[in-house]
Amino acid sequence: MSLDDAIETVLQKVLRRIRPTEEERAFVEGLMRELEEIARETIEDLGLDVKPYFVGSLAKDTYLAGDHDVDLFLAFPLDTPLEELREEGLRLGKAIAERLDSHEVAYAEHPYVRATYRGVKVDLVPCYDVESWRDVRTAVDRSILHTKWVNEHLNGRNDDVRLLKRFLKGINAYGSEVYVRGFSGYLAEILVIKYGSFLKVLENSDFILRQKVIDPAGWLRREPEPAMKTVKRETEEDKPLIVIDPVDPRRNVAANLSWEKYGRFYFKAHQFLENPSEEFFFPETRKSGSYLAELRRKGTHLVTLVFKVQELVDDLLLPQLERSARGFERALSREGFNVLGWNVGRSSGKAFIMLEVDRRERERVKIKPGPEFFTERGWDFYRKNGKVWLIGKRLYAEKRVKESILEVIEELLKKNAVALGKGIRENVKRAEIVLDYVPKELEDEAYLFLAREKWSLKEQ
Amino acid sequence: MSLDDAIETVLQKVLRRIRPTEEERAFVEGLMRELEEIARETIEDLGLDVKPYFVGSLAKDTYLAGDHDVDLFLAFPLDTPLEELREEGLRLGKAIAERLDSHEVAYAEHPYVRATYRGVKVDLVPCYDVESWRDVRTAVDRSILHTKWVNEHLNGRNDDVRLLKRFLKGINAYGSEVYVRGFSGYLAEILVIKYGSFLKVLENSDFILRQKVIDPAGWLRREPEPAMKTVKRETEEDKPLIVIDPVDPRRNVAANLSWEKYGRFYFKAHQFLENPSEEFFFPETRKSGSYLAELRRKGTHLVTLVFKVQELVDDLLLPQLERSARGFERALSREGFNVLGWNVGRSSGKAFIMLEVDRRERERVKIKPGPEFFTERGWDFYRKNGKVWLIGKRLYAEKRVKESILEVIEELLKKNAVALGKGIRENVKRAEIVLDYVPKELEDEAYLFLAREKWSLKEQ
Repeated sequence: MSLDDAIETVLQKVLRRIRPTEEERAFVEGLMRELEEIARETIEDLGLDVKPYFVGSLAKDTYLAGDHDVDLFLAFPLDTPLEELREEGLRLGKAIAERLDSHEVAYAEHPYVRATYRGVKVDLVPCYDVESWRDVRTAVDRSILHTKWVNEHLNGRNDDVRLLKRFLKGINAYGSEVYVRGFSGYLAEILVIKYGSFLKVLENSDFILRQKVIDPAGWLRREPEPAMKTVKRETEEDKPLIVIDPVDPRRNVAANLSWEKYGRFYFKAHQFLENPSEEFFFPETRKSGSYLAELRRKGTHLVTLVFKVQELVDDLLLPQLERSARGFERALSREGFNVLGWNVGRSSGKAFIMLEVDRRERERVKIKPGPEFFTERGWDFYRKNGKVWLIGKRLYAEKRVKESILEVIEELLKKNAVALGKGIRENVKRAEIVLDYVPKELEDEAYLFLAREKWSLKEQ
Repeated sequence: MSLDDAIETVLQKVLRRIRPTEEERAFVEGLMRELEEIARETIEDLGLDVKPYFVGSLAKDTYLAGDHDVDLFLAFPLDTPLEELREEGLRLGKAIAERLDSHEVAYAEHPYVRATYRGVKVDLVPCYDVESWRDVRTAVDRSILHTKWVNEHLNGRNDDVRLLKRFLKGINAYGSEVYVRGFSGYLAEILVIKYGSFLKVLENSDFILRQKVIDPAGWLRREPEPAMKTVKRETEEDKPLIVIDPVDPRRNVAANLSWEKYGRFYFKAHQFLENPSEEFFFPETRKSGSYLAELRRKGTHLVTLVFKVQELVDDLLLPQLERSARGFERALSREGFNVLGWNVGRSSGKAFIMLEVDRRERERVKIKPGPEFFTERGWDFYRKNGKVWLIGKRLYAEKRVKESILEVIEELLKKNAVALGKGIRENVKRAEIVLDYVPKELEDEAYLFLAREKWSLKEQ
């Protein structure tokens, strides 16, 4: 079997698993018709001038089998004051949700209603009925334009989008959330439209990076000023990719894509094209092993902080954990410990920070540099310290310090000498800190981290 | 007893030990007369136009009791070609030495004869008979001018110079050799002349540093151009003191004085004035202790390299040892070991380098940063390494490394990855390297180093 045939075979197998069946499709379409009906009636009942729009992967028919959450946007006229849109939008959302199965209020830039209906999650999001990027006033307003643009340009390549999305999920590079920094669904759609197919996108993983700027709607010609500003800004921030939003020249669709996630895509694309397999789309759960054996093999040590966090959502929690881990890395390095790597996350309702360090104990003394000897501060230093000597014009003395890394960390936290994420500072300070041991539920996580399986580019 | 009286008592006691007795003085004067006689006769015998001059502390009557080496300079007319001065000077020196007890040829800028006569070392040094700095052609030519200037300005303060020299010796800050970087005898003489007495020099230890530029002969007025050039050059090199040579505006008499040695003088001067004692002039041998106990107390480790060196003189050897120690400090730091301090020297015919380090073993793996992933070198790195992951756009991999510091040092030396002093490179590479153990004869040295007694500013 040729490589091309092998690839085709794999894709067909994958498609059988991710393409919605006729039954699912009928169910989804029925659901949407019902929801639209309910929405229209409610709008009329409330005497509002609002248009309901379906957006997202359902509206674009790019959803994966079994993954059919509904995004129903409630578009208010552009002349509605923002305050009124917030209030009336929420009232309308609630009124619609009353006729569904259950609901709650969620908060983004403005409040919206999350309902469920016949087992499906339904987001009821108020927005403005924009027709062009110049009208955009809130973060969600573009969604209607996105849906429209994709539907106008996809030309039946819906399954290619499904393959790409599933591929990105499989290699752990899907989702533009701040704690993922991967490819959004919209970005996947644009890439398929621009390069023609799932395989073309993979084959161009190198070219896409070199091309750097992708401008499917020709904004650089049509609206050079805002488009160039976007290119300049994103170039300065060293983004791997600049995809000028087909519906808004001011926006880089790939703004949240990290080099790490593009790199994963890059290597996995090469691997898949050389050696196709379903594994890329549906990886087996990563192989695990003993984190203690890994520590012995490497001769390193593992410090783990475990602590309660309130109801912080991942979007907020994970960046704070990352910031805190980097704070520990810097603070410990100043104290003479080398942090080889760190890992953060959440498990069983608690947050954790893992730090792989080079040793558990350091020397008991530290050489403390002092001021220049002929200054007032020099005399102070000379008087305050026991043994004092000179290197060049600077005084030095010996300082007795804590030996064990746990004591050092406790002292650093007590002295507020670690840059921690603001929202979790107090939690970290009350953390349980353990050395070369993790609670049962973190054992796999510890192994995947220490063995670097978690980020490995080679193993599937 | 008042503090002034206490100081005076100490100085009188010290003077009794360092002022030459009438017998010594008579012996020295007789010796000089005899030597001058021999020199004059030999010069006449050889038909040379050379004048003999005594220079150095004997000629200035600033020598310490028992320390009366003779410097006899043989001054050739200015129109003598340099080559002729070298040849004839050596021939003359040898001819004089033939009439003394024993001699050998030594090498500085040009060769000279070291003889002994009646138990006294006699250096016979050819030079030019200069009358002004404009005539100076070789490094030794200024000596005659120095002797003349000091004798014209000392005005009977010879004992003050003796006290200052003995004080500087006692606190280990005497000698302008490159491996001492302390005060020369000539500098001590200038300071006494400038500030009036031994005590005045000590009392001005702070003022001297702040004054920075000392110009006893008024060169800045008389010859502003070369004098300013000297000030500028030495200021840029951040010398602690700029003493424009009274006989040559181009030269800083304190050019070799280090901040460390000035600092020792600074603190010891304060200590002496507050708490005078003979100890400053004649310190008891430094108290010793167990270097192993010191290692245990500090939780650090000691690496010692011991190796043979040929007949390198200290002037050449010690700077090379220092350079090599600094090379080890940098190389080991790149390898993850922290060097808290180092110490070099010579003992029983062998040279040694001691390195105080934070640990004897490091972790068995190192995180190895690679190139950017989308480059040719990125692909090489990806293929060559087992586990590979991304941080930003850069690839990383794990590398197994030597654990023990001795193995690391051996590997570094084999790979020529330590910046060593040129003259001793091969010797260091063949060194015996020991950990937390030193040969018997280095035990005291190891203790004084680890306890920092060697450089301590407080204990006498």
